[in-house]
Amino acid sequence: MAAERPSEGIILVGQKPTMNYVLATVIQFNQGVDRVIIKARGRAISKAVDTAEITRTRFLPDQITVKEVKISSEKVGEPGKERTVSTIEIVLERVKK
Amino acid sequence: MAAERPSEGIILVGQKPTMNYVLATVIQFNQGVDRVIIKARGRAISKAVDTAEITRTRFLPDQITVKEVKISSEKVGEPGKERTVSTIEIVLERVKK
Repeated sequence: MAAERPSEGIILVGQKPTMNYVLATVIQFNQGVDRVIIKARGRAISKAVDTAEITRTRFLPDQITVKEVKISSEKVGEPGKERTVSTIEIVLERVKK
Repeated sequence: MAAERPSEGIILVGQKPTMNYVLATVIQFNQGVDRVIIKARGRAISKAVDTAEITRTRFLPDQITVKEVKISSEKVGEPGKERTVSTIEIVLERVKK
């Protein structure tokens, strides 16, 4: 039996250069995934939006679309030293043809 | 005749401290506006998300909701020196009661 193809990938955007995350996203789509979710927190949020936009406009034009963007807040840090950070989730989907 | 109440406000997030934009957003809602659109480009995108989340969770809890988040790209700079920047638009709306 053939292995089941994963339908969804997740990219966690952090401190590395933007292009690392762009290439990771492109590779996931090229491997046949139909949906990639790009997640980030705090200052990496701008980089997550750059990752989605560079992938969509420069690497996979007319092939993927921004399906949904969600923003939220999360508590991070040890108990007693908690602080709230903003989060983003960008859902990219392959365009059905 | 009474002056017509504006139904929509726009906040452009840039280099100032986050709390400036939070307060500007809160003031708009307190003046009776039903929808505020928070816009930013490039590295200010993280600050725009912080602005929306701090307003929603700390200043106007249960009173406003994130209606929509749009991301896109824009060309900026002089002709010949153009570069592409990512943009975000966060639509906050007053919760109907």
